[in-house]
Amino acid sequence: MPDIAREFELIRRFFDRQQASEHIVLGIGDDAAVTEVPPGYQLVTATDTLVATTHFEPDADPVSIGHRSLAVNLSDLAAMGAEPRWVSLALTIPALDESWLEDFASGFFALAERTGVTLIGGDTVRGPLAITVTVQGLVPHGTAITRAGATPGDFLYVTGYPGAAAFARSHPDHELAHCFEFPEPRLEAGDALRGIASAMIDISDGLDSDIRQLLQASNVGADIDLHRLPVAASIDSQLGFLAGAELAMFGGEDYELLFAVSGEHRRKLREQINAWTVPVTEIGKVVAADGLRWLLDKGVYTPQQQEFRHFV
Amino acid sequence: MPDIAREFELIRRFFDRQQASEHIVLGIGDDAAVTEVPPGYQLVTATDTLVATTHFEPDADPVSIGHRSLAVNLSDLAAMGAEPRWVSLALTIPALDESWLEDFASGFFALAERTGVTLIGGDTVRGPLAITVTVQGLVPHGTAITRAGATPGDFLYVTGYPGAAAFARSHPDHELAHCFEFPEPRLEAGDALRGIASAMIDISDGLDSDIRQLLQASNVGADIDLHRLPVAASIDSQLGFLAGAELAMFGGEDYELLFAVSGEHRRKLREQINAWTVPVTEIGKVVAADGLRWLLDKGVYTPQQQEFRHFV
Repeated sequence: MPDIAREFELIRRFFDRQQASEHIVLGIGDDAAVTEVPPGYQLVTATDTLVATTHFEPDADPVSIGHRSLAVNLSDLAAMGAEPRWVSLALTIPALDESWLEDFASGFFALAERTGVTLIGGDTVRGPLAITVTVQGLVPHGTAITRAGATPGDFLYVTGYPGAAAFARSHPDHELAHCFEFPEPRLEAGDALRGIASAMIDISDGLDSDIRQLLQASNVGADIDLHRLPVAASIDSQLGFLAGAELAMFGGEDYELLFAVSGEHRRKLREQINAWTVPVTEIGKVVAADGLRWLLDKGVYTPQQQEFRHFV
Repeated sequence: MPDIAREFELIRRFFDRQQASEHIVLGIGDDAAVTEVPPGYQLVTATDTLVATTHFEPDADPVSIGHRSLAVNLSDLAAMGAEPRWVSLALTIPALDESWLEDFASGFFALAERTGVTLIGGDTVRGPLAITVTVQGLVPHGTAITRAGATPGDFLYVTGYPGAAAFARSHPDHELAHCFEFPEPRLEAGDALRGIASAMIDISDGLDSDIRQLLQASNVGADIDLHRLPVAASIDSQLGFLAGAELAMFGGEDYELLFAVSGEHRRKLREQINAWTVPVTEIGKVVAADGLRWLLDKGVYTPQQQEFRHFV
């Protein structure tokens, strides 16, 4: 077997796991995958790329890289209220490093198996380390939660502790390190919020930037009280209140959910969230006036930081 | 508007073309796209990555890069007999070069519009130049053409002129240059071959390698006559017969279709192919014995070249 064919076998060994799954007619190994969308469902598709240096350190734990490359995509599906089903993996690697591949695959598949996602295809090519994942999911007809449905009077909620991922990225030995290395896509919350949330987005660029995206899509504004931001206690104690709040606003890479709920559905939400594994915090309110206002002690607060990234 | 927001606007300008399309519930601009697979159809999904240096020269014409990044994926759908519908584009670029982006988008969208494909989402990130495209298409229930259906006695066919792309890559000023720069996905042929071809694959790695993939999936062998390989006349005259044939066998990047047709369906094929824009050539026959035999003047021919790539 020539070296090249041996390399091919190696890749196949790590990724060609024939996971049996309903609705998969043809998985890995042909020119394309063939799947079935069951009657009454719509297809939901998201794509995200992680590039070494830009999105993670080149020498980062490959288990974490495998996890994150899938997690950031699952987070997009969670933000639509969709249930993930199938995933395609495009992996660009500088060289064939068996141990790296094994760790990457273990991080990727641990999350895939836990969330019921089956790898149906992909491509492995040689080049600078980067991963593009495309995930496909299902949502009952007409129930996808977009960014566009928030109306004045809605309450705004966020899952988890925004800012923790950014803190963890710069403090890799901290107890919060997993918040950056192993973000947990909020699929359970996203799923439960169909019929409850009027609009939803996942937080990838930071609360400030992503709330603005939701407000713009909904053509509304919002008032958010800095004191209500759920900053992790260890960040608050290390950085202080304002720096911790700004990290939540501008840090990014949290992959938490931000969503709006009408007064009518607020009780339904409160009944549900106690059963969720992720904490949920009410942080503010949707208003008719354009724009996002951060409020502090009854005044408008002007953040010290600017959005630090968009195109990364 | 900070520089970063301006950059974001730039990207949006080139790629956020709101193409109206049936079955698209939600296109670009939310966390994920929402689409509908009509009743009676199955979903077909393929992903391919092109990386600078590996798959094209970094200074290659961006119009060609845009075209190829979509074409190689459409070719996978053609090989299933599927009709492409939706595409996601993950673009990694080292810097924001407005003129490069404009040309890339023009190559990408010219092919997308011509083949009825709508961009439904994607991601633009900073890093070494690379493009991952995921294309989704439809096929009537149960009619996808896999690699696995060839049986002894079937005839083998190939579209176009394999080897022309490899020749063109090393002769960028030649009249055949478009064969590498602007490969034409054989969607018309693929579509027409549902119900006719027993097995099909697209040629990305070279005839030799890809025929073997089809034979292995079908658990059969094949005899192919070197004299029947459709080598472009200008390659034949420049390289000579054997070198031209070996280029067809090992050159790769042709994105032509190789398919098997039973004796029963051979007449149906012959009635159809005259109407196609792409030439089709019968090159050999499927046999029960394992393996691929290249035949020359009634003997078995042993190629001088080895497969030159698998993992690229």
